[in-house]
Formats: sequence, structure tokens, C-alpha cells
Amino acid sequence: MGRRDHGYGWGVSDATFVKPGQDYDRDMDYIPDRITRDARKPDHGPVEGDLWPVEPGRYRLVAAPACPWANRSLIVHRLLGLEDVISVGRPAPTHDERSWSFDNDPGGTDPVLGIHRLQEAYFARVPDYPRGITVPAIVDIPTGQVVTNDFPWITHDLFFEWTELHRADAPDLWPEDLREEMEEVMERVFTEVNNGVYRCGFAGSQESYDRAYDRLWAALDWLEDRLTGRRYLMGDRLTEADVRLFTTLARFDAVYHGHFKCNRQKLSEMPALWGYARDLFQTPGFGETIDFDQIQAHYYVVQRDLNPSQIVPKGPDRSVWTTPHGRESLS
Amino acid sequence: MGRRDHGYGWGVSDATFVKPGQDYDRDMDYIPDRITRDARKPDHGPVEGDLWPVEPGRYRLVAAPACPWANRSLIVHRLLGLEDVISVGRPAPTHDERSWSFDNDPGGTDPVLGIHRLQEAYFARVPDYPRGITVPAIVDIPTGQVVTNDFPWITHDLFFEWTELHRADAPDLWPEDLREEMEEVMERVFTEVNNGVYRCGFAGSQESYDRAYDRLWAALDWLEDRLTGRRYLMGDRLTEADVRLFTTLARFDAVYHGHFKCNRQKLSEMPALWGYARDLFQTPGFGETIDFDQIQAHYYVVQRDLNPSQIVPKGPDRSVWTTPHGRESLS
Repeated sequence: MGRRDHGYGWGVSDATFVKPGQDYDRDMDYIPDRITRDARKPDHGPVEGDLWPVEPGRYRLVAAPACPWANRSLIVHRLLGLEDVISVGRPAPTHDERSWSFDNDPGGTDPVLGIHRLQEAYFARVPDYPRGITVPAIVDIPTGQVVTNDFPWITHDLFFEWTELHRADAPDLWPEDLREEMEEVMERVFTEVNNGVYRCGFAGSQESYDRAYDRLWAALDWLEDRLTGRRYLMGDRLTEADVRLFTTLARFDAVYHGHFKCNRQKLSEMPALWGYARDLFQTPGFGETIDFDQIQAHYYVVQRDLNPSQIVPKGPDRSVWTTPHGRESLS
Repeated sequence: MGRRDHGYGWGVSDATFVKPGQDYDRDMDYIPDRITRDARKPDHGPVEGDLWPVEPGRYRLVAAPACPWANRSLIVHRLLGLEDVISVGRPAPTHDERSWSFDNDPGGTDPVLGIHRLQEAYFARVPDYPRGITVPAIVDIPTGQVVTNDFPWITHDLFFEWTELHRADAPDLWPEDLREEMEEVMERVFTEVNNGVYRCGFAGSQESYDRAYDRLWAALDWLEDRLTGRRYLMGDRLTEADVRLFTTLARFDAVYHGHFKCNRQKLSEMPALWGYARDLFQTPGFGETIDFDQIQAHYYVVQRDLNPSQIVPKGPDRSVWTTPHGRESLS
């Protein structure tokens, strides 16, 4: 996992995930290009950058299994059966301030892109790219340039624009009749849960943390209630909304509970959410994208301002993820 | 709780609880005086210092509720009904590198000893006292000098030497017929559990932590098994061994699970241990000595090398401690 490669000095805390005295504020400024069928104008969402054409074999999805935002794209990619259409590069879980690298690949190099650091693909697109070197990123293989790292639209477009290349029995992750309510649910899941755990963990003051904790648990109580009578977030059908919630739940007890102090309860103490999370984990396309070693190494090693020792916990017990969830009867 | 009085700077980590690359090693070098009936030679244990006479009203037990080692003495003191015989001073949960102070008392001064820092009572005994300023400490009120901080012998002697001053129905915390086995159990509880959680939390390397974690959970599995068929550690009777285990269990989910990475499971996920811990918590003399706010503030604020932000978690839910434990039938 490469974590032993990262020397550290006690008393040194040079990571800067937390800004003292401030609330956590995620930088949402991404490279906004879209990949669409025939580079057409998409039906939904912003067109603030260039349009690129859908083309099998042309792009590489760079997605670190450790990262929840990247994890979304790995799940959708598998659910839609795009493995032979868009290849996947997987950065290692730990990295220094220059961000994600391919330390886990032979020679430390992505075998398709031929680069060591994902930074190189960003710089190929924008020299001295000034913002976060984030995953997921879709890279144009011929030029080695990042096309987009705008994660909510990446999975959206994998569904709506790559349709003709999906496997025959791919699920309808965006049912037309549910879309309006889905957008509302996904927005709340994003601001309150996906980002809510970071708001707790990267809080810059006790007061900021206290507020973030209350907001997070209000949302988890809402979800616990919503999922008590529904198998999936939108009812009987698995949708993109489930993918987006799952990636946070999968990391909850392993990282967010202790490291981010999201500790009113463990996920495993929320009966509906815990059954729901295991149901998804055991659904093909979900569990096989989860690498708990990489997930824990990422947060505990990279975020040195939270964990100066960089020691990675051995717990919790992971075998519980494959226990019966008993939620089949809900749909 | 005073924690807001302690300014901190991010990127500064001047606490030194952890020694990089090393296993945790508790300094067990205490002031070894004993207080005995008529200053007699005690029947058990070392006599490496002076002997002081039992005398009602003469001594003050200084014991911060936050500290597990001090918590022992607070429980035994109550179980034996010594409230009117030995008064109690309670240092605040948070402090700087000069150790425990009376920040929570009016004027920041202990009303009986008239000191602000416990350090003053140590210096009154040994000028420039070079070792840890620890609680519990018993202070001779007339001279203001620390008599002893040798915690296992403090509770031992409260039982064996202050006998004539116990309340009439005080429990027999050291049954003669159990003493030999009790000593073995208490030794294992001390090295593997009371100190074992610190060995995890203050580990100076991943390897040291990994070993400490395995040792701790081996001991907790042993205790889970032992307490499945026994109400108390020694069977039907509450003893000093239970007091010693309880103070660690009371802090387990609140602190050790997340802050010390003792996270294979929560205590509340170990059925026998969790029932046992609640049984004791609900026994007069135990629960009223537990102050979860002080406990969490102490570890999360003072141990800045583990938690540079000094942010104290809001969880876990504490209401679970008063739920029915169902263990009455075991005795």
C-alpha cells in the first residue's frame, strides 16, 4: 500500500486539510468539459467547457479506490459494463502534497498513460494547473490531457451519453419518472452526508465541528427513517442516488467514525442504514470496488494534520459486511 | 471544563506522549510512602518510603475524575464510605505541560490545600520533583506535601488500613479466599487492559501499534469469555479487581475506541463486557464518579500529539449506560 514509504517526523504537521478557526469549504472548481455522444450539447447540466465525443478506447478513467468521489465512478462504470470501453487507472492510496500517483503500478507508472503522477495529466491540459489534482479524472489517452474531473457529471454522462455501449442488462440508474425527486435527494446526500463527514473531520474549531456533527446526524436520522420502509433511496429501484450514498457509508465505520469524529453511533448501529449498506455491498458492482486497506491508509496517512503519527488502525472488523442484510423483502 | 482556555496553534505539536519509533513504556516510579494504621508495617506490599499514620481529616485525596488511575481511588473511597474521613480535591480535566491544576475550583484554587497546581504539593515534598505530577495523590494537609502517588497501593491501603473507619456495610473488596487469584487477574488486567489501551494510543510506530492492538484484544476476548458465566471478575462478589477493570471500560467507547485506535469493536459490541460495565456503572459508588465530559476533554485536549486540533467529539451517545444490563441472574 506504500504507506511505509512515507517517512514522517513527529511534531511536524505540514498537511493543510484543516484551516484553523474556519468551517470546511470544499473547492468545487473543476475542469468542466463533458464527453457526450457525437460531442453534442447534453440534455442536462452545465456546458462551461469543451465537448468531447464518446469514443470507445479513447479515454482512461483515473480513479483511486481509496477516494469516495472516485469510488462513485468505479461503481457506475461496472454497473453499466463499460470495462472494455473505458479503461481504468488506479492511483495508490497514499501520496505527498503533489497528490495522487501510480505508486502501486509496476515501476510506479500507469501502464497506459505512462505517467507517475496524475499531476502530469493535469499539467498537460493546463500548465501549472493551480487547483486540486483530484480523482476521478477522465484522461484523453492520445494527448495525455485531463478532459474533466467534474465528478457528478462524470457518472451522469457515463449513463446518459455512453448508453449505446452499456451492457445489455445495465440498470436504469436515472429513471425518468424519479429524476426530480432524485435530484433533491442527491443534493441533500451530497451537502449533508458525502460532504458532511468532511465538514466534521476538517472543522477548524470546536464550534464548527459541533455544528457539522449536528447537521450530519440530522441527515443520517432522515436517511435511517427513509430507508426503514424502502429498499433503496428511491424505492424499489437501484439508482445513481444509491451509488452516491454508498461510497460514504462504506467508509463510515472504517474512517469517518473515529478519524473524522462522526461518532454518535457506528453505521452498524443504525439498523436500516446498516442493512442497506450491506445490501449494496453485496450487489455486484459495489463490494468489489471497496478496498478497506486502501481506504484507511489514505485518510490516516495523508491527512497528517489529523493524525500526525500516520498510524493506521487495525479495526474495525470487516467480516460484518458480508453478513445477511435481510432487506430483500422490502422490494 | 476549561478546555477553551487552552489556545493552540495548528501545525504545532508540542505534547510528548508518543515517542517516535518506540513502544509505550509507563513510568512506574512513584513516591512510595504508605499510610497505615498507627504507621505500622503493612501486611502486604513494598515499604520503600516512609510510613504515615491513618488519621481522619488529616489527608486530602487529589483525584481528577478524568483520569482512570485516579478514578479507581474515587470509587473505592465511596464504596468504603470514607467521604467524611478523607476529603477529595478534584483537578480539572485539561492542563498544560505543568500537569493537573484546580482550574475548576473557585479562583482556580483547591479550597483545602490552597494551591493552584498539584505540582506545588509535589514540590513541597521534593523540591524540583523530576517525575510525573500524577493523580491520584494523597496530600498531608498540615504540611501540604504529597504523601504518595503510588496508585495501586493507595486503594489497597484504603481498604486494609482504614478498616475501622469504613461504613458499616462496606463491601469486602479483597476477600481473603480469593486474594491469590485476584492478584493474578489484576496483574493481567493492568498490563494488558488498563495499560494496554495506552500501549495502542501512544505507540510510536505502526508495528508497535499493531502488536499492542493484538495484545489488547486477546485480553478483551479473555475477559469477555470470563464474564460470560460470572457476574463479577471473581465470581459472585464485587472486588477491587472489578474497580480496576471498570475505569478502563468506562472510557473505552468515549475515548480509547477512536482516540487510541482500540477499534476492533466498541465495548458496546462485546455482550458480556458491556453488560458487566453497565452493571457496575449502575452500582452505587461507580457511575457517579464518571464524568464523560471531563474524560473526553482530558484526552482530546491534553494529548495534542494525537489530536492537534484539540477538538472533542460529541459522540458517542451516553444514554446507553443506564439501559438494563440483565446480569442480576448471574449471582
